[in-house]
Amino acid sequence: MAFQVYLSGEIHTDWRQQIIDGCARQGLAITFSSAVTDHAASDAAGDGLGPDCEGFWRDHKSAKINAIRIQNAIQRCDLAVIRFGEQYRQWNAAFDAGFCAALGKPYITLHDASLVHPLKEVDGAAQAWAQTPEQVVELLCYLLKA
Amino acid sequence: MAFQVYLSGEIHTDWRQQIIDGCARQGLAITFSSAVTDHAASDAAGDGLGPDCEGFWRDHKSAKINAIRIQNAIQRCDLAVIRFGEQYRQWNAAFDAGFCAALGKPYITLHDASLVHPLKEVDGAAQAWAQTPEQVVELLCYLLKA
Amino acid sequence: MAFQVYLSGEIHTDWRQQIIDGCARQGLAITFSSAVTDHAASDAAGDGLGPDCEGFWRDHKSAKINAIRIQNAIQRCDLAVIRFGEQYRQWNAAFDAGFCAALGKPYITLHDASLVHPLKEVDGAAQAWAQTPEQVVELLCYLLKA
Amino acid sequence: MAFQVYLSGEIHTDWRQQIIDGCARQGLAITFSSAVTDHAASDAAGDGLGPDCEGFWRDHKSAKINAIRIQNAIQRCDLAVIRFGEQYRQWNAAFDAGFCAALGKPYITLHDASLVHPLKEVDGAAQAWAQTPEQVVELLCYLLKA
Amino acid sequence: MAFQVYLSGEIHTDWRQQIIDGCARQGLAITFSSAVTDHAASDAAGDGLGPDCEGFWRDHKSAKINAIRIQNAIQRCDLAVIRFGEQYRQWNAAFDAGFCAALGKPYITLHDASLVHPLKEVDGAAQAWAQTPEQVVELLCYLLKA
Amino acid sequence: MAFQVYLSGEIHTDWRQQIIDGCARQGLAITFSSAVTDHAASDAAGDGLGPDCEGFWRDHKSAKINAIRIQNAIQRCDLAVIRFGEQYRQWNAAFDAGFCAALGKPYITLHDASLVHPLKEVDGAAQAWAQTPEQVVELLCYLLKA
Amino acid sequence: MAFQVYLSGEIHTDWRQQIIDGCARQGLAITFSSAVTDHAASDAAGDGLGPDCEGFWRDHKSAKINAIRIQNAIQRCDLAVIRFGEQYRQWNAAFDAGFCAALGKPYITLHDASLVHPLKEVDGAAQAWAQTPEQVVELLCYLLKA
Amino acid sequence: MAFQVYLSGEIHTDWRQQIIDGCARQGLAITFSSAVTDHAASDAAGDGLGPDCEGFWRDHKSAKINAIRIQNAIQRCDLAVIRFGEQYRQWNAAFDAGFCAALGKPYITLHDASLVHPLKEVDGAAQAWAQTPEQVVELLCYLLKA
Repeated sequence: MAFQVYLSGEIHTDWRQQIIDGCARQGLAITFSSAVTDHAASDAAGDGLGPDCEGFWRDHKSAKINAIRIQNAIQRCDLAVIRFGEQYRQWNAAFDAGFCAALGKPYITLHDASLVHPLKEVDGAAQAWAQTPEQVVELLCYLLKA
Repeated sequence: MAFQVYLSGEIHTDWRQQIIDGCARQGLAITFSSAVTDHAASDAAGDGLGPDCEGFWRDHKSAKINAIRIQNAIQRCDLAVIRFGEQYRQWNAAFDAGFCAALGKPYITLHDASLVHPLKEVDGAAQAWAQTPEQVVELLCYLLKA
Repeated sequence: MAFQVYLSGEIHTDWRQQIIDGCARQGLAITFSSAVTDHAASDAAGDGLGPDCEGFWRDHKSAKINAIRIQNAIQRCDLAVIRFGEQYRQWNAAFDAGFCAALGKPYITLHDASLVHPLKEVDGAAQAWAQTPEQVVELLCYLLKA
Repeated sequence: MAFQVYLSGEIHTDWRQQIIDGCARQGLAITFSSAVTDHAASDAAGDGLGPDCEGFWRDHKSAKINAIRIQNAIQRCDLAVIRFGEQYRQWNAAFDAGFCAALGKPYITLHDASLVHPLKEVDGAAQAWAQTPEQVVELLCYLLKA
Repeated sequence: MAFQVYLSGEIHTDWRQQIIDGCARQGLAITFSSAVTDHAASDAAGDGLGPDCEGFWRDHKSAKINAIRIQNAIQRCDLAVIRFGEQYRQWNAAFDAGFCAALGKPYITLHDASLVHPLKEVDGAAQAWAQTPEQVVELLCYLLKA
Repeated sequence: MAFQVYLSGEIHTDWRQQIIDGCARQGLAITFSSAVTDHAASDAAGDGLGPDCEGFWRDHKSAKINAIRIQNAIQRCDLAVIRFGEQYRQWNAAFDAGFCAALGKPYITLHDASLVHPLKEVDGAAQAWAQTPEQVVELLCYLLKA
Repeated sequence: MAFQVYLSGEIHTDWRQQIIDGCARQGLAITFSSAVTDHAASDAAGDGLGPDCEGFWRDHKSAKINAIRIQNAIQRCDLAVIRFGEQYRQWNAAFDAGFCAALGKPYITLHDASLVHPLKEVDGAAQAWAQTPEQVVELLCYLLKA
Repeated sequence: MAFQVYLSGEIHTDWRQQIIDGCARQGLAITFSSAVTDHAASDAAGDGLGPDCEGFWRDHKSAKINAIRIQNAIQRCDLAVIRFGEQYRQWNAAFDAGFCAALGKPYITLHDASLVHPLKEVDGAAQAWAQTPEQVVELLCYLLKA
């Protein structure tokens, strides 16, 4: 069984790489995707286009361009892993979770126990909650190897 | 034209009532819906059911029950208004926005200018951004009366 | 908020009536539906039609006729309650649960604690598990009144 | 013509292997999938994750993880074969049948004549009923070779 | 339970009226719909429109207009009854059956035993086969009254 | 039979009113909907909202608000009438036609013979082409009365 | 551009082979599919399965098995060619056309001018009408080569 | 990440080739598709088929054939680029945009600043607006390489 896995959320730690490396060590047939994770490039995604603008409209222009990549990746994936860190509001991660839920795409969350209560609606529609990237790798091993 | 409008997000201010009252004053044919907004009742939604539990599973049980109401309300609505306040993480509001986006349900956001950058993905898929409940009422007047 | 609730499963006890009566006492705006619950009539649903037959084909003919009513009821419902009793195999109840899950229709299960392990996949896709009709009534009160 | 075939249900006999071997001998272009069929591993699927728990919540956690694999397999398949044995309640098999029916995925059942009456709703939505793995192999030969 | 029933096929006998009258006598809550059954009017549906034309294009223009009514009626119905008579080719009735099947709309066929073999694919996707309008009325009584 | 009819396109002549009046004279059970047809109000739809802006972003803000009304009206309609006049580019009318086509919503076009060639793709997916509002009224009479 | 083309209908002439050969001569990247076209084998598709039966139920059993192949082929195809000959009623071909129409799958019909009137509803939802296999080959050349 | 990109609209300049060449130089994994862009061939698409005709019906016949290719290409694409030039009405381009919007397929528009106001509804549902083919290439680089 081969899977496409979409990795959503936090961009300030190396959780994506840990999962990718862990799955590679296990020899799992997984293709990973994610949004552009270079923060500055992502904020500037629309700067080369359309009418010059600042503030709301600059963000708007970039967000809509990034959505081309994100929504294609979600549509194609078999599973999403959605990471919430301690910092920042990460509304985009919760938005991706809601998007998955409405499409019937299974997702798992990855966050510390301290975030359980504020994430209860997001976890409520998830297939699982993991606390470490290693747990995610183990889960993928189980799902794809067994 | 009659509309069903789903009101999602912040429960600590009276923004819902302001919109409902404003629309009533304008005589608009709108039915409003929302999640259960009594915080304590919402957290305890599952306490009467299933196996006793605490922490993660208590939240999980309640969140899944609340989702019955929320997802029915979103499926039926013609427009959602999604409110983000300054306090709390409000991941459930962003989750609802993603859910709407995936279903093709139009939504508008309601938040201060200070939140523009962290909400850029949520605003990117919205039909409009309003800063006050009065603006939402005006928008609904325009949409339903003209 | 008004709901349509589909009641699926066991036909040998009065659990349906208990839920209907309990909701009526609470004044909830619920329309209930279910399959034909007269066992003999249900088994004979196709006897007046098509070529005479016995055994497999008699069951087949009746089951396909009953499915007209059942699948319409599921398609229209906002919530299904799916009851498993101690007796009989009740594969039709589990079939209805799977049908709901694939359509994204929320359902809750109603069964004793003794059935938790064999029903784990069915409960896994449910929004809640209740053990008594009274709990279901309370849940509906919470969902529709709050 | 190549097919993906999902094999659901009973895990205590070697019916899966008989079908896989039979199709291999015929040189059919079929990829088979199924849930994890190691019973103990399946029950423990969630043990490495989330908050420790027992009873209902342990089953719940595992069932939701297994659903990631099962529902992906059903979504991808061209045909499901759903096996009911004499023992156990096998509600998960009936659940998979309902899931297939709602998605419009064709499925065939595989069970003894003694189960015809209790399985009438499940058979009613099936494309065929087989009694032996050899019959399933013949059917697949007919469908893919002719 | 109230139903919308779409009546498709043969226009040369009074089978529609027999079903409508029979259901009225039983007090069933059914709204019936059908294509325009005045043959000459139906063939001339497009004569007042578009460029004048004869032969293929006259038929084409009328057929596309009739499809507005037919496809709306099928989309709204809870059940279709599809009638094949001895005369004429009635490809439109078989077309409606295929349209229902793809949408997951249940339908029953109404035809004599002499047509069983040529209609086997159409009957194969039907929920039931009836031979007389009285049988259809009985079936509807069972489905809606029980 | 009752219909909801969406009227799209040209706002500089009274074709909408002619159709509405003609249908009223015939006593047809039709509810009509359309975009806001006051050109200045439509262009200013977003002026009360979000960050001040001009040019592209002002148009963008208003267009997205108008889309809330338009897309709800299309989703609800049973038939759309899409009008192209001699003046202006009316890309919004062609956009609505494409939107209808992708949803499987039937639409008819209303335009002069001089526009047949440039509108061939739009007419190709339409159910009919009319040249006058009177023809549209006749068509609706035929569809709803017969 | 590569296409999958489903060939439906008449099995008594070599029109399928003419199209396949013609496309091969043109080097088109087309994969063709069809139902089992060996009439006796198709009628006997279910003889090895389930309870023995004759007449209606024998046909029923075989038709449902054949539908596994047919409906998978239609779901996968990019275009269907649906052939009606002078003989036989060919309701299955019209059924396939309706199935395509409801799914939004484009199809073209292939039949003589003498069948234009009785096929008007089937042609009305088709993308084109051809009279010879050569015309179909030319059409496919145009669509895939240009 | 690999993409399929559908190029819609203007056929009188070499914008398609500029985008294709630019992406090739960047080594992007993109498969491009478009309608038949040879104007005379496209207008004559149906000339070899069906009953001879002129004017409306000739256009109609060709448009429906071209739609087979266009709608398949849109259904398969991950992104559409929709080009509007100064000349001609290009209603087919706006039609394609509406088709994309209803399917949830992301698209970007490519046009001069002079067309901003008449294209506001089309731009309102787009993910981005570009003014030159180079900008489109840069956007695709960003989306696929980052």
